[in-house]
Order: sequence, then C-alpha cells, then structure tokens
Amino acid sequence: MNNSGASRSLESKMQRLDTLITNATVITAADRFVADIGIRDGRIVALGEGLAEGAGPVGETIDASGLWVMPGGIDAHCHLAQPLGDGAVMADDFASGTRSAAAGGTTTVIPFAAQFKGQSLRAAVEDYHRESDGKAMIDYAFHMIVTDPNQTVLREELPALIEEGYSSFKIYLTYDDLKLNDREVLEVLALARREGAMVMVHAENADCIAYLTELLEAQGHTAPRYHAEAHSSIAEREATHRAISLAELIDVPLLIVHVSGPQAIEQIRWAQSRGLRVYGETCPQYLMLTADDLDQDGFEGAKCVCSPPPRDPAAQQAVWEALESGVFQVFSSDHAPFRYEDDKGKKLHGEEASFSCIPNGIPGLETRLAILFSEGVVKQRIDATRFVALTATNPAKIYGLYPRKGTIAVGSDADLTLWDPEARVTVRNDDLHHAVDYTPYEGLELTGRVVMALCRGQVVARDGKPCGQAGDGQFLRCDKPTPARPRGQAKGF
Amino acid sequence: MNNSGASRSLESKMQRLDTLITNATVITAADRFVADIGIRDGRIVALGEGLAEGAGPVGETIDASGLWVMPGGIDAHCHLAQPLGDGAVMADDFASGTRSAAAGGTTTVIPFAAQFKGQSLRAAVEDYHRESDGKAMIDYAFHMIVTDPNQTVLREELPALIEEGYSSFKIYLTYDDLKLNDREVLEVLALARREGAMVMVHAENADCIAYLTELLEAQGHTAPRYHAEAHSSIAEREATHRAISLAELIDVPLLIVHVSGPQAIEQIRWAQSRGLRVYGETCPQYLMLTADDLDQDGFEGAKCVCSPPPRDPAAQQAVWEALESGVFQVFSSDHAPFRYEDDKGKKLHGEEASFSCIPNGIPGLETRLAILFSEGVVKQRIDATRFVALTATNPAKIYGLYPRKGTIAVGSDADLTLWDPEARVTVRNDDLHHAVDYTPYEGLELTGRVVMALCRGQVVARDGKPCGQAGDGQFLRCDKPTPARPRGQAKGF
Amino acid sequence: MNNSGASRSLESKMQRLDTLITNATVITAADRFVADIGIRDGRIVALGEGLAEGAGPVGETIDASGLWVMPGGIDAHCHLAQPLGDGAVMADDFASGTRSAAAGGTTTVIPFAAQFKGQSLRAAVEDYHRESDGKAMIDYAFHMIVTDPNQTVLREELPALIEEGYSSFKIYLTYDDLKLNDREVLEVLALARREGAMVMVHAENADCIAYLTELLEAQGHTAPRYHAEAHSSIAEREATHRAISLAELIDVPLLIVHVSGPQAIEQIRWAQSRGLRVYGETCPQYLMLTADDLDQDGFEGAKCVCSPPPRDPAAQQAVWEALESGVFQVFSSDHAPFRYEDDKGKKLHGEEASFSCIPNGIPGLETRLAILFSEGVVKQRIDATRFVALTATNPAKIYGLYPRKGTIAVGSDADLTLWDPEARVTVRNDDLHHAVDYTPYEGLELTGRVVMALCRGQVVARDGKPCGQAGDGQFLRCDKPTPARPRGQAKGF
Amino acid sequence: MNNSGASRSLESKMQRLDTLITNATVITAADRFVADIGIRDGRIVALGEGLAEGAGPVGETIDASGLWVMPGGIDAHCHLAQPLGDGAVMADDFASGTRSAAAGGTTTVIPFAAQFKGQSLRAAVEDYHRESDGKAMIDYAFHMIVTDPNQTVLREELPALIEEGYSSFKIYLTYDDLKLNDREVLEVLALARREGAMVMVHAENADCIAYLTELLEAQGHTAPRYHAEAHSSIAEREATHRAISLAELIDVPLLIVHVSGPQAIEQIRWAQSRGLRVYGETCPQYLMLTADDLDQDGFEGAKCVCSPPPRDPAAQQAVWEALESGVFQVFSSDHAPFRYEDDKGKKLHGEEASFSCIPNGIPGLETRLAILFSEGVVKQRIDATRFVALTATNPAKIYGLYPRKGTIAVGSDADLTLWDPEARVTVRNDDLHHAVDYTPYEGLELTGRVVMALCRGQVVARDGKPCGQAGDGQFLRCDKPTPARPRGQAKGF
Repeated sequence: MNNSGASRSLESKMQRLDTLITNATVITAADRFVADIGIRDGRIVALGEGLAEGAGPVGETIDASGLWVMPGGIDAHCHLAQPLGDGAVMADDFASGTRSAAAGGTTTVIPFAAQFKGQSLRAAVEDYHRESDGKAMIDYAFHMIVTDPNQTVLREELPALIEEGYSSFKIYLTYDDLKLNDREVLEVLALARREGAMVMVHAENADCIAYLTELLEAQGHTAPRYHAEAHSSIAEREATHRAISLAELIDVPLLIVHVSGPQAIEQIRWAQSRGLRVYGETCPQYLMLTADDLDQDGFEGAKCVCSPPPRDPAAQQAVWEALESGVFQVFSSDHAPFRYEDDKGKKLHGEEASFSCIPNGIPGLETRLAILFSEGVVKQRIDATRFVALTATNPAKIYGLYPRKGTIAVGSDADLTLWDPEARVTVRNDDLHHAVDYTPYEGLELTGRVVMALCRGQVVARDGKPCGQAGDGQFLRCDKPTPARPRGQAKGF
Repeated sequence: MNNSGASRSLESKMQRLDTLITNATVITAADRFVADIGIRDGRIVALGEGLAEGAGPVGETIDASGLWVMPGGIDAHCHLAQPLGDGAVMADDFASGTRSAAAGGTTTVIPFAAQFKGQSLRAAVEDYHRESDGKAMIDYAFHMIVTDPNQTVLREELPALIEEGYSSFKIYLTYDDLKLNDREVLEVLALARREGAMVMVHAENADCIAYLTELLEAQGHTAPRYHAEAHSSIAEREATHRAISLAELIDVPLLIVHVSGPQAIEQIRWAQSRGLRVYGETCPQYLMLTADDLDQDGFEGAKCVCSPPPRDPAAQQAVWEALESGVFQVFSSDHAPFRYEDDKGKKLHGEEASFSCIPNGIPGLETRLAILFSEGVVKQRIDATRFVALTATNPAKIYGLYPRKGTIAVGSDADLTLWDPEARVTVRNDDLHHAVDYTPYEGLELTGRVVMALCRGQVVARDGKPCGQAGDGQFLRCDKPTPARPRGQAKGF
Repeated sequence: MNNSGASRSLESKMQRLDTLITNATVITAADRFVADIGIRDGRIVALGEGLAEGAGPVGETIDASGLWVMPGGIDAHCHLAQPLGDGAVMADDFASGTRSAAAGGTTTVIPFAAQFKGQSLRAAVEDYHRESDGKAMIDYAFHMIVTDPNQTVLREELPALIEEGYSSFKIYLTYDDLKLNDREVLEVLALARREGAMVMVHAENADCIAYLTELLEAQGHTAPRYHAEAHSSIAEREATHRAISLAELIDVPLLIVHVSGPQAIEQIRWAQSRGLRVYGETCPQYLMLTADDLDQDGFEGAKCVCSPPPRDPAAQQAVWEALESGVFQVFSSDHAPFRYEDDKGKKLHGEEASFSCIPNGIPGLETRLAILFSEGVVKQRIDATRFVALTATNPAKIYGLYPRKGTIAVGSDADLTLWDPEARVTVRNDDLHHAVDYTPYEGLELTGRVVMALCRGQVVARDGKPCGQAGDGQFLRCDKPTPARPRGQAKGF
Repeated sequence: MNNSGASRSLESKMQRLDTLITNATVITAADRFVADIGIRDGRIVALGEGLAEGAGPVGETIDASGLWVMPGGIDAHCHLAQPLGDGAVMADDFASGTRSAAAGGTTTVIPFAAQFKGQSLRAAVEDYHRESDGKAMIDYAFHMIVTDPNQTVLREELPALIEEGYSSFKIYLTYDDLKLNDREVLEVLALARREGAMVMVHAENADCIAYLTELLEAQGHTAPRYHAEAHSSIAEREATHRAISLAELIDVPLLIVHVSGPQAIEQIRWAQSRGLRVYGETCPQYLMLTADDLDQDGFEGAKCVCSPPPRDPAAQQAVWEALESGVFQVFSSDHAPFRYEDDKGKKLHGEEASFSCIPNGIPGLETRLAILFSEGVVKQRIDATRFVALTATNPAKIYGLYPRKGTIAVGSDADLTLWDPEARVTVRNDDLHHAVDYTPYEGLELTGRVVMALCRGQVVARDGKPCGQAGDGQFLRCDKPTPARPRGQAKGF
C-alpha cells in the first residue's frame, strides 16, 4: 500500500477526536505504558505517541503528564434504592449513588434488581428501571436477586431476562425473606449452566445465625457488637463450602461475594486448587474494619453492622493475602446505605433494639477505589495492574460487560480515571457525595486520588467532585459472562 | 488545543509509519480488541481504528483481517551452543537456534551463559557473546548459570553483571559439574535479594538420582527408560521444597523451572498459598510426553531423555490444571538440542551405554508456541490472554525485559505474531529449522499456525519459514525483574 | 503381709472360676501377651500365668493354645426389626440378628430405636424393648434415632433417656421421613453437649440426592446402578462438612457414620487436624464393594443398594488408608437386612421400579469381623491391636459401654472371641444365620475364623455356629460416652 | 479339668509371689481397670481380683488404693556420658542419669552410643558399655549414632549390631561432626530397610543454621537468644521434609525426633496423611519453654539453649495439638546435661562467647513424666491411656523392647509407676537427682506425683527419691522394631 493521497481528502482522512488525553501513564490489567489516548463518540479510538500530530480536529486536550490513567472503576456489588421489607429505607437512590460513585472514580455500577418472594422477576426488573431512569450519572447494569425461583421464573422469566442483558444474578443462603434452600439453589445453578449466566452467592448459614442470635438475645446480649458474634465465621465457611459443592455438582461457575476471612478463603482456595471455576469477591470493610468497630460507645457500633461482619486483624491479613495471591477476582463495595441518625436507617427500631434489628450495610461506593489504591498499591501489597483487574477488568469480564467496559483498549468505552498517585487525602464524610450521614472510614489518611473521571468520554468528576449530569448514565445490557462456559460434562446430564 | 496547522506542516505532523497492520485482533495478557497497529522504527507507536487515515506515509501495510495478533513469543529457557564437559555437542548454535525459534513465532530467546566451575563468570558471559555475535536472527538476552559462586563471583562479577543487564541466573541442585550445595544456594539467593536479580532453579535432588542410578545400573537396568525411574518425582519434590525453603529464609523470589508433575506442583502451590513469591515454569514435554516415550524399541527412547523426565498421564493432567489455575507463570521450551544419530549427540557413548550417559535434552524451540496454542487455547483449557501471559508477558516481566518486550502496547518493540487460529498443521521434523535430526512430536496434528512473525517491525518468518537475517537479532540488556522487590524484612537481617 | 492362713480357710480363699481359658494369645487395643484367663460370674477376674495352679474349683477349662483371644465384637451400627414407612420389612428381628452376630464373633450389638416423626421418643424406645425382650442371644444397647426434636423431646425425653442409659443417638441429613434441618441439628447438638451424649450423623445432602434422582428418573435411568449416581460423593462430602461445622459451632463431639470414600474422608481428616473431636466410622461394604456391584444383570444390583453407596477402587483404597492412619475409630456393619426375593424386601415395588424405591441396606452382621480380620490383619494393612480397637474397644468407649465391654481386662465382662488366625473360610449365605436370602460377599475367601465366642462367660458360638439361647442377651444401659466432655468454651455460651 | 488336688500339693500349686500390689487402678495404653498385680521373678504373672486369696506365699504387699499404676516410663531419647569433641563434658553419667530417671518414674532409658567420625561403630558401642557397666540403677538399651557410614559400618558392623540388639540408630542432618549428607542418609535408610532397624533423625538444615549464625555473629548478635534465631523453624521444616522424602524413596519407616513447632508438624502430618510410616517425637521443652527463655539477663539464657530451640506460644499450642491428635507417638526428654556454672558446661567458652559455642542441651530425665502428667493428663489435654502410649508403650514397640517393656501385661517386666494423681509438687532443682546445677522448670507447680517406681519388681524410687542400687539396671537387647516391616515394594528395588 502506498500513501499518495491528495491533500483535498485530508479533512476526511484526519478524523475528528472529541478528546485527546496526552502523556498518560496508561495502566491496564496487564500493561503499563505512556501514550496519548484518542477519544471519539465516547469510545477509545487510538492509543499512540504524538497522536495530536496525525489527528484531525480535537475537541479537548487533557494533559495527563505525571498521572496514571486507569479504566474507570466498576462497582459490581452495590445496593441502590432497594426497598426492604421491614421499613428501612436506603439513603441512596440512583442519583445520589451514582453521583457518589463518580466522585470516587467509579464509572459503572451494577446494583441489584431484587425480586420479592411472590413477585414476578420481570416486574422487579421493571421496577428498578423505573427507579433508575433518568437519574444515573454513570452507566449501570443490573444483577437480579432471585428469591423465588418458581417455575415461571425458571422456565420463562430468567431465560428471557438473561438473553435481554441481565446475565447475572445473586442468591442468598441467609435472610428469611431472601434465602433459597439447597434444592432451589440447585435449580438456579442448573439454569445458569443452561443459559450461561453467572451466579453470585451470599454464603452464610441462616440456621446458625438464627440459633446464635436467639441464644445471645436470650442472654440479653443485644448490643451491636453481638452481631459479629451471631454471624460466626463458621457459618460463613459452612455456607461457602456448601455453595461450592452445589456448583460442583452442577458443574457451573460460581462467585462467592463479600468474603470476610480465612475460613471462607480456605474453602475457595481449596476449590480453585481442585480446578473448580469458583470466584471470590471481597470489600474494603474486610480490609479496614474489625469486629471491634462494632463495639463502640452507645449505639455507634451499628454504623459498621454488615453481613458477614468484619472479623479481626488476622482475618484482615488473610484477606490481603488472598487478594495478593489471586484467590479473589473482584473487589467491590457492597454499598448498602443507611443513615445512622434516622428512624428509617440504622435506628429503625431505636438504639435499644437488638443487633438483629439493625439494617445491615455500610456505605462505600465513593471510597472503594481510593482505599484499595492507597492501602494496596501505594503500600506495595498489590501492583497497579492487579488493582485494575480487581476493580474493573475482572468484573467486566465476569459479568459480561467486557470489552465495552473494564479496560483501556481500542474500541472500548472511554471510561477512564486519572490518578495523581502521590496526592494525600483524608476521608471526611463531609467531602463525600452519598446521602449517608457517616462513613466508617472518617479520618482515614490515604495516598492517591482520582483527579478526573470520564464516562464514555464525558468528564463526570474532577478533584473528587462529581460534575456529570443525572440521566447521562446509560443502562448496559450484559453479554453472557466470559467464564461461564462449563468445561466438562457433569455427571448425570 | 486546536487543530489549525497549515498544510505545509503536514509532512512533519503526519508522522511516517514503517509498517501498518490493519484489522488485527490484538490479544494481550489482559485484553482482546480489533485495531490497526502502527509501527515506526521497530516500535509500536499507535493502536487505533482507521490508522491509515490519519497517518503520514506508510511503508508497508499488512492486512490482518481474521488473524490474531499476539506478542512475539519469548522463550525464556533454552540452551544454544552450550559446551558440555563430556564431549557432547549441542546441535544448535545461535544461527540455527534463532532461525528455528523465529519460524515458530518466537522473537526473543533467553539462552544461558554457563560458567564452568573454576571459570570467571564474566569470561563465561564473554564467551557466549562471541558465540552469538552476528548470528542471531531474533533478539536475545542471557541468563547466567552460576556453578562456582566464589568470593570474586559473589562480590564483584555478579553484582556488576546484574547491573550490566544480566539480571537473572540459574542454579542447579543436581548434575555434578553444575550443582551448588545449600550454603552456596543461600549465598546466591542473598545476593539476588541485595542486587534485585531473579534466580531460577533446577530442582532435583542429586544424591537421590545418583543413588537410584547406581542401584539400577548395578541391576543391569541401563536402557533409556530407566532414566525416568532414576529421576524419581520424589527427588524433584524434595529439591523443590528445599529451594522454596531456602528462598523463604532469605525472603527473595524464586522461579522453579521445568516442573514435571503433581509432587512438585503441590509444593509450589503450597508456597504460593502461604504468600511466598515462588514462580513456576513448565514445558511442552510435560504436557505431551510420558515416561512411556522413553521406553521404545532399541535406543529410540533416548530422544526423550531429559530432566526431570516426562512422567505419566496423571502428571500431564496435573500440569494442565496448574497451568489453568495459575500455579505456573512461564511456559518455555527448555530446548536442549542433541542429534540422535550422532556420536556427539544422543549416541555419544553408543547405544549400549547406560541411560546415565545420554545427553539430556529435547528440542522444542520451534514447536513450543504451536503446541500450547493448539492443545491449550484451541481445546479451551486456557484462554488466549493466558497464552500470551505464559509465553510472552510474564517472562518479559519476570526477567526484566518488560515493557520493551512481551506485550502489544504503545512504545513496546514491534515483536508480533500473526496467527491463523484455524489452520491445521502436522508436525514434521523435515519442516523444522533447528539442526536436530528429530522432534519428539513427529506427526502431531495441531490447529493454529503463525503465519507471520515480526521482530522490531521486521518480518522474520512467514508461513512457518524463517526469512530474517542472521545478525539482525540484538542483544538485550535486562532490567531488574519486576517482581524482585522483597516484601518484608527477613528474620536476622 | 504374710501367708500363714490355715488350710480350713482355703475354700474361701481359692475362689471358684467358672471358666478358665488357658494359653491364650490375648490381644487388646494396645497389647498382645500369652496368659490364662479366669472367668467368674461372667466377668474376667484374672489374667495370669498358670492360673489353674492357684485357682479354686474350675468349672470349665478351655485350651486356647495357638488361638488369638480378642474382645467380643461390638457392632455399633445395625438395624434390627426396624419398621419402615413404606411397607418394607427388615428380615432380621432381635432373635435372628443376634444369632447371626454371635456366629460371627459379635457379642454386643447396638441397634437403633427409631422415633417416627410425631412419635414420643420414649414410646419409640419402649417399642424396641418390647420387640427385643427375650429374643437376644447376646447383649445389646440402643442408639436412639431422633427424627422429631420437638420441645418435649428436647426438654424432657432426651435428657431423661440419656440418663437412663440411652446416651447416643443418630440423626439424618437425608431421607424425607428422618432428616433434620440445620436448626434442628444445632438444637440436638446443643442438647448433646449439655447432657453429655454422643451424636452420630448420616451425612448426605438430601436436596442433592433428590435433585439427581429426579433428573435421572426423568431420563429413564431407573436401574439399580443409578442409585450410586444419585448419591453423589459430593452430596456426602457437603453434608459431612456441614455436620462438622455445626458441631464445631456448638463445640461438641460428633461421629460421622458409614463413610464411603475420599471426599468425606478429606473433610474428617481436615477437622481432626484442626483439633476437633470428630470421629469416623466405616463399614465392610466400602472396602469390598464398588458401584459396579450395583450394575449387574437384571435387578441383582439391588442387593448392593445402600446409602452412601459403594464407590470405586480408588475410594476403597482411600478407606483403607483412613483405617490405617487413624481417621476412622469405628468399624461397623450398618446391617440393614432386606430379602432379595421378597415383596417386602428389595423387590418391594417390583423389579421395574426405580432405584429410588429400593429399600436401602446390606446384610453384614455376621461377616463384619471376618472380613476385616482377613483383608486387614492377615494382609497386614492393620495390626491386630487396631482391629480390636476398631471393632470393640473404641465403640465401647465412644458409646459408654467401656470398661464393661470392649476389652479383655480384669473386671470386664467375659465377652471373648477365640480366633484361629490361619483357618480358611469361604463365605456362603447358606452358612450364615441371618434371615436374609443373600450376602453380597458370596464366595469370598477369607483367612481367619472365630472358633468360639463367649458372652459374659457363656459360649454363644462354636465354629461359626450359634449355640447360645435367645433371651440370654441382656440390655445394656450406656454411660455417658468417654470422649463427650467438651474441651473448651464455645463462643456465645 | 477338675480341682481335686489334695492339700499336700498346695504349696507347689499356689505359686510364690514376690510382690503383690493390691487395688491398683491399672492404666495401659488402651485400658483402665482396678486389679491386683502379682509379681514374681521381676515379671508380672497375674492381674486379678483378690489375688492374695489364691496366691501362695507373698513377699511383699503394696496397697495401691487410690493410686494409678502405669508402666514405668521409657525415656527413648537421652544423652548420658557422651563425650563431645569440643571439651564440653556431660554432667550425668549412667549412675547419676539413671538415678535421676528412676526418681522421676522412668525405669528404662535408651541413651546413645555415638560413633566418632573415623571410629569403628562397634568400638563406640563397646565404649558405652564400659561406661555403663555396673552403674545403672534402671534398665537401659542403646540407640547408636551413626556419623560415619563407611563400607565397614554398612556391610559388617551395622547388620551385626542390629542383630545383637542395637536395632535403632540416630542420624543427624546438622552439626559438623555428626551430620550425614543425603547420599549417606539414603545408604543408611536402605540398610535399615534391609535389616529391619528403626532410624531416628535430627532434622535441621546445617547450611541454613551456619549461614544464619555467621550472619548474626557478623552483626555482633552473639547473646544466647540469637541461638533461637539462627535455628530457624524453616531450617527444621526443610530438613523434616527432606528426611521424609528420602525415607519415602527407600520405603522405610522413619522417626523425626524432638519436633519443635508447627512447620515441622505440618510436614509430618502431611506424610502420615499420605500413608507414610513417619513417626514423630516431641519433648517437654517444646511444651513449656519459648525462645523468650533464651533471652534472660546476662548469660542465663544459655540454660535453655538446645536444638531445635523452643519457639513461641503458638508453637507450644501446635505441639499440644499434635500430641492430642496423634501426630506424635513418642514423648522423650532429650536430656542433654550440662552444668551452667562450669567451664566444661554451658560456660565452656565463657559468658562472652557466641551462642554458637554454647553446649546444646537441657536436663529433663527426671521431670519429663511429671510435666506431661500435670500439663497433659490433669489439664485434660490428653487422657491417661495416651500418656502411657507416649511415654512407655509406643517407644517400647518402636524400639523393639515390647512386650518385655512398656506395658502392664502378663509376662511383661514389672516396671511400674504408682502415681498419686492429686499430689501437688513444685519443681526445685535441689530436689532433683541429676548432676546438673539447674532445671529450666524451677518453680513450676505440678499436680500428680510418682510415689513409687519399680523396675523388674524392685522398688527403685519412693516419693521422688531414688532407692535402687547402681548396677541393678540391666542392659536390654532390642528386637527388630514392630513397625519396621516395609509395606510395599519400593520402585527400583
């Protein structure tokens, strides 16, 4: 091929760039290199040296010298505007939640569309669409929560919804209004195998927790700190082993969410070393908090009540080691936002109520990335490529958003975070953008900051402040997950 | 920034591309996307959509539609022109070895510069440079082999050579003329920690092998197949555990080369699960051969004599599972080329000689990539990104060649392989380009073929035939390995 | 002390011996020595050299030269006269069952008193007493089977019955009419901890089995051999891990019965290595049969249908290794006698019925000891002391019958087996004394034979033929089990 | 048989008892029962109820009501009168050592007959006989220490000595003047397999210790506490794995002596779970001391310098758990007696000398049993039968002294300890009978005391005071060890 084009055709040949980011230290899940990034129509169209020189008209140029440019964060586990049966109300809807996420460098969230028992699953999905329409500042997909796998759900709704872009769903082994029994788990795992969906599981043994809760309450042990005791790590380990076993029986991948410590980790590592496609997720609370954080003056401990609960320093260490050594593939927030000073929040039943009545959850959408960056990358526990894998690339692949989301590559959406790796920040709830009145990380000093975040080429945050528009975020239909293809033939099929 | 440059400056702005590869399905260790690849001065300068349109003059355009473009292979474990004490002569020098490598899609080799006991290490390195100068068709670096870690070596030569770009070295726990004792191992590991070098270890227990060999020979069991019996997997496991322990004591990374089966794998996995930075390498022979291949008519089994030996089908399965689950980071050939019909090759001491006199080694430079592609990627045991990691990205990072080598990224050398993922090939030694008179894989049917390989932008192979020039390959100075920074403080330091 | 008693007092001093066994090679769980055994009033009163010389009148003298004398076998897991909900009828009542046991060298059986759901537990126990009164040829105790742990059972019946000598009970995690849910398991484990009882668990996951059964039946796979497929070893492993976890939460000992293979063994070994008081039992069928025995012409495979099912040769090997290395403490028969040619037996629903309708169980009371002796002791897999521990001493200790039963010691009941360790026997159902019309071991050639068995000093079998009287067997009240004292304090208590 | 003997024959029939112990709570490795014990000619001839009544003349009657009677302790690992190359002199010879042992309830010791490099092994054995002749108060056998396995030793001396009753020997993997290389280890293991001997191994990696020692000394770290740092637990683990591997290659049993903590325990447990006949021994110092005991004012830490060193509280816990769960079979003292205030003892090279010059060893012959009884049995970590197994029965079986020694059974030597299980004692070196001027357990408060010890029926200690005669102890020829028969065929043999 030669290059003898005449000058009159230059305009057409030198294609327009909407945005040009120059001198970026680009970091992907595998690579680190310096390049300019050319963006057009919300997508990355070029990575190169001196792109400006060959480019046509450029809308905006951003100088990223000295900055690390990573894929925008994907928070694959967060709860927004999710109604609860007991009257508690989540503080964040899709507006405040995605605003807060954007401020922290997250450009895609995957919250849940939760089925009530007895409800049509499609109706549940439609409810959440109504709730989210026009509100999100960043892109979003949905995991479903399947609580009632009746025949209509299994034969009609789930297969259709998976095809339509809701290709992952979560199941619970605990909580009375959510949990499935083992038979139901087997049915939904078999469906996931047939349809190619990814199943996430909340693995705690409901009966163990109920037993311990009643025992503690009978003894008058109702303070928030007893939540950690009632949610024994044995109950988590048992349910983890059970979920793995059921998935092994069906021969289907499985992802264990929000793993809190060494007992469950041991089971996941054991499964992985036996060649099973079992994936793991952990969250900032299991790195930064312990059960002692539930044992504060008065009712303050309620702020850190979540399930499974934070454990102890040895568990934190085990979670770090599992992050480093590859047991975990995903790092999410499990953002479940309840206000503390609020009778529809942590104080739903008052300060005297038993721990078992406290709405479960911790806010974390906005702080997730900064915590892992500072404690993980800056402190050299994990390298920057692994940070990208855990916070963006792996969730995109596992949940069917890749390659549109989760990486910096030609053709991918221009979802980018620009990090100043040396900036120092102190976490203050006053500086956060969720609707919760506290953060469990108040006062935490971090190194590394997202100075700019772009979603499909649009700047959605600058210097920790959201600057996108509610409604600019798009709903994403998920493909079948990359790792969902069963490797072998299961016995009996 | 605006884009109002006048046309006279176009020449300078629209920079020249030497080569443009269009419509490539680019695969890195993390990503897969379709893009054009712009190459200038041997380096990748742009990845993008429609690069031709914005580019200046283009030297050559290669249409990669339908092809997978991966980083050129790095063979991090091969022996070329290495003199042996017993009179055996390696069939391949740097000319034939790199020619063969290029034909198979490998664009960088890291053979060994081996010190003789008593020899200056620097002198050894210089010997190998003399041997390689002007001969290599592709780029090359050197691992050193340290057999005599005397004070001059430890205090002067090794630190200087590591600084000069020889930042990895191999040690042996077996072979009389190569092996170090535990104290020497500790000394070189401590040096590697101080200087930031990567240590590779051949882990077999010398005394076990000698004991079994003498026992077998005393019983008249001298046929090639007894080689596999003398090299017990217990001897490999023991040495693996020992090497790991010594590295743990010093707190330094370590890479176990050519792992053959489940016993050694168990030790490496155990080390990794305890958070140790222990890496593992395996080779095609442990996937494709078994001890039965040493048990052929007459002396034919000698063709497959290597150490550790191939084991059994269960071991092959264990090696595959360790590849899949991430126990191994590197996939190399351990090419050690001896002609069969040659009195300086496998028949050095004649067909009646004991197995213990047969030169150890199997040729594999040219077939390495195609075997892993066909048996691994095509058969869906590993995905294509993992193939790239194992054969290019990881060795580049581990041995200090990254990001110059090992990936497809802006700024990296344009070392590329273009694969037709559906082509069918049958392995025939007649079609290979090494100087060995056999391949252990004769007749093996493979899917997937390298239709073109480029080294620094130059085409070095087309359709399985080398087309580069001897001498075009450059010597590469290696940086300190990426993973070599110790995480903690070792006890007693 | 001096010895100047006058001759007139000799009668009183030289106490009567009812039986004197001379020159016995006595084998206990720890020791092996040659001695005479003096028996009076059904108890061992002396072990010594030349006992005859110091003894008073001797009722009967038995010359045991060349024979091994071991404690009479305790079969701690067998089903006799147990009514079943579906109309199947067990072939053996207490008369035929204990007659058969005696013939095989077993002198104590611990069958089950099974509660129906809805039934009073005490009523169940009374039912079984009515059934057994006056029928047993050897001694017997009862485990209870708790299927309905309602408040009356938990607060009144169980504590009282445990005190009264029913200090162990079995629970099921499978079978619709027997299984407990996790909450019920926790309640009964907590009770066992409070009261000092021993809990045995049948560990298979009910939902997994039901799921696989329906799947297989829907595909028309109803032959007996599919029983083995429906009862996946994953289902057994899962339930084993779960049972262990629940017992760990409560901090109480637990015994896993009839363990069939490596998956469950791995969990038990893991628990034991973590210091948990988890015990294991296995049975002859897991050493001698495989799933292939269920895959015979016609309906014959039904003869070997039991749960868990026999697995494969690798599982047999794993069970042997666990016997050798101490993972198992108890070796029982799990005798569950159903006639083959009987419409209340294996053919309850005819030969065309699905595997899921076949009454579960294998006869084994009479062959248990001889099989373990021949395959274990004679083939040197285990030594004779371990044989004694597995078949007599350990069950006696674990179920609260020690030291009355289970050993050869001064004060213990004179329950003895005299073995000719070199006799050769071929198993023939015609030679057995149960009421079942087959044995799965027909034609098996064994070395070692019980030439005499004594229960409380009375000869109950000679040369494989029972010779005791129905009704001579006594009911045994069990003490609190020796290993049932919890070691630590459980969390939350 | 009838009982019509006339009274004139009564004298001959009612055989003499030299000693009668009445109302003893007899405890063996398996059983616990109340009986009288009849002793004649130093052997147990009867166990029974009311033995006095049927007995002939009785020499002495001992009332053991309320006492536990256990087998006399066997201390299978102690050093007496062993010459050292560096001028250090052991404080205890066979007179003081056995006197001290007897006082503590030990009735058999198995010290070492150590070969010097270059010395005839037979000459070494003869030296130790000269040293012990006429001095021992209790019975004794010898383990050999093989340091120079030359052809004469391997072909002539060892086979002959094993036949003559020296059927076990110890080898070292560390200490310059003792250690064997791997090839030598293989040779002696193969010999042990051929001849049926038991091999004990001191498993620490010599090169690791030398490396760390030089490093520490170069930094001026010479205080006693650095001994614990130089003897890294990694060095112990490595050597343990290596020794296990070499024994696995040869297929011969192996006993790892004085195991100090979890790293080595993990290897032993791993070996046992794989079915290898690997045995383990631990000692009081690993239960009661930690490295902190080496870190005392001035030079005092030298008192606790031994190898491997005591570790930390977590290691103590791991050692307890391994005792409980059966990883260890033997509990010995490793008594190695050096006086503290003595220029041939701990201060051989003065207080300023480096830790590496301090004679290694801790006195413990007299306190061994009381410590395990109080801390193990009384505190319910192990039961009394396991205490017997660890301290008497197992060593007797493993080292070929059973059934003559190690149990309470008809025909066995009347080696007995009578324990008051509730007596309280405080350890004071002033109350001990060794020739060492300290005990590391000064002030330790214990529950349980040996109130009498008999060796072959003779009282050798009362109330913690020896009362036997030097020279009354007999030399014991050991049979081939019970567990020494290889199970399978090793590869290549």
